[in-house]
Amino acid sequence: MSLEQDILAGNQLLAERNRGWFAGRDVFAVNLMSSPGAGKTSILERTIRDLRGRDIPISVLEGDQATSADAERIRAAGAAAVQINTGTGCHLDAHMVAHGVAQLALAPGSILLIENVGNLVCPALFDLGEEARVVVTSVTEGDDKPLKYPHMFRTADMLLINKLDLLPHVRFDVERCIDHARQVNPQLQVLLLSAETGEGMPAWYDWLTAQRALVMSPA
Amino acid sequence: MSLEQDILAGNQLLAERNRGWFAGRDVFAVNLMSSPGAGKTSILERTIRDLRGRDIPISVLEGDQATSADAERIRAAGAAAVQINTGTGCHLDAHMVAHGVAQLALAPGSILLIENVGNLVCPALFDLGEEARVVVTSVTEGDDKPLKYPHMFRTADMLLINKLDLLPHVRFDVERCIDHARQVNPQLQVLLLSAETGEGMPAWYDWLTAQRALVMSPA
Repeated sequence: MSLEQDILAGNQLLAERNRGWFAGRDVFAVNLMSSPGAGKTSILERTIRDLRGRDIPISVLEGDQATSADAERIRAAGAAAVQINTGTGCHLDAHMVAHGVAQLALAPGSILLIENVGNLVCPALFDLGEEARVVVTSVTEGDDKPLKYPHMFRTADMLLINKLDLLPHVRFDVERCIDHARQVNPQLQVLLLSAETGEGMPAWYDWLTAQRALVMSPA
Repeated sequence: MSLEQDILAGNQLLAERNRGWFAGRDVFAVNLMSSPGAGKTSILERTIRDLRGRDIPISVLEGDQATSADAERIRAAGAAAVQINTGTGCHLDAHMVAHGVAQLALAPGSILLIENVGNLVCPALFDLGEEARVVVTSVTEGDDKPLKYPHMFRTADMLLINKLDLLPHVRFDVERCIDHARQVNPQLQVLLLSAETGEGMPAWYDWLTAQRALVMSPA
């Protein structure tokens, strides 16, 4: 559909501009995507609390159709946050991110965590200019999601399988989920964790800080 | 955005045509919507099994980006099913439903259950010509979803709160969820259930069969 192509091409230009700005400012930008309720905000809250004292500035852009509840949770956890409300919109786009970033005073060396609208479909198609794409799924959602929503998993760099604490109570085969995800994206990295109990979170922090180090200019 | 309005207006014409066809055939059509993994397919499987023997023909349209896994689950449960794959598309539209219906030999008096793409955002905007709109949420998703995705809850007739069996293991305030849902839609009906254990399912069957009776022509 040429209409869709036009919208995506317009977004791509702005995404590249964002990418340049992030690189120029030594900012590591991560696009977090998932179904509603997979636990993106809880992961961010715990990440911000646990990385405090490591001298890494963290800021957050919060995408939601409505409410500023998530930005308030992030600020309570101790990071700067800007809420973007999309109204009827189903995803963040590069233009919204540029506006959100303009309201954040991002220090060089920052990690910018962009929490997309909870949606396993549309955000997959929109580049925000991020350096890394992270998809979160939870063990309560079923292990078939990577095959049923392939575009999201195909474009991601990292899959976080969240809510490990609920694994004893649900039918979810971790190996099967990972196998499905790697069928659509053989390069996909995978971490298992629980934002509730903290299990598995240190490996996520290691990945985040190592990836950030890669984008920093030589001192 | 006039572009969005054009697409929606085009869809509306086809939706009204579907609505007329359903009324003419005495078919009760239900549009089921939710986040990915909230349990729509599990609810349908159990519904089909439990309503067997009640002499109500049930057919299913299954919407997914990819795979025909859900249609196979429905057929295994004992109902006719047609799978619609949307590719990169984020929702079913009235045109897809018309095509799917053409492949189902719907008997007069049928219930047609249309399982939309797992997405709490986009399907809210697209009328399929259904008689009733049902949104499914699960207790693992958090009780804030009605406020964060208001369009979906505003346009629904019925809210099913699923996975009641997991309630002891998660932080989810049922009354708070219902209160949030009624803030955006005071007329919304609500049922609590578990497709896993069967708890609460009979009230759902009562609603479904009573609503079906309302659309049937006098004998």
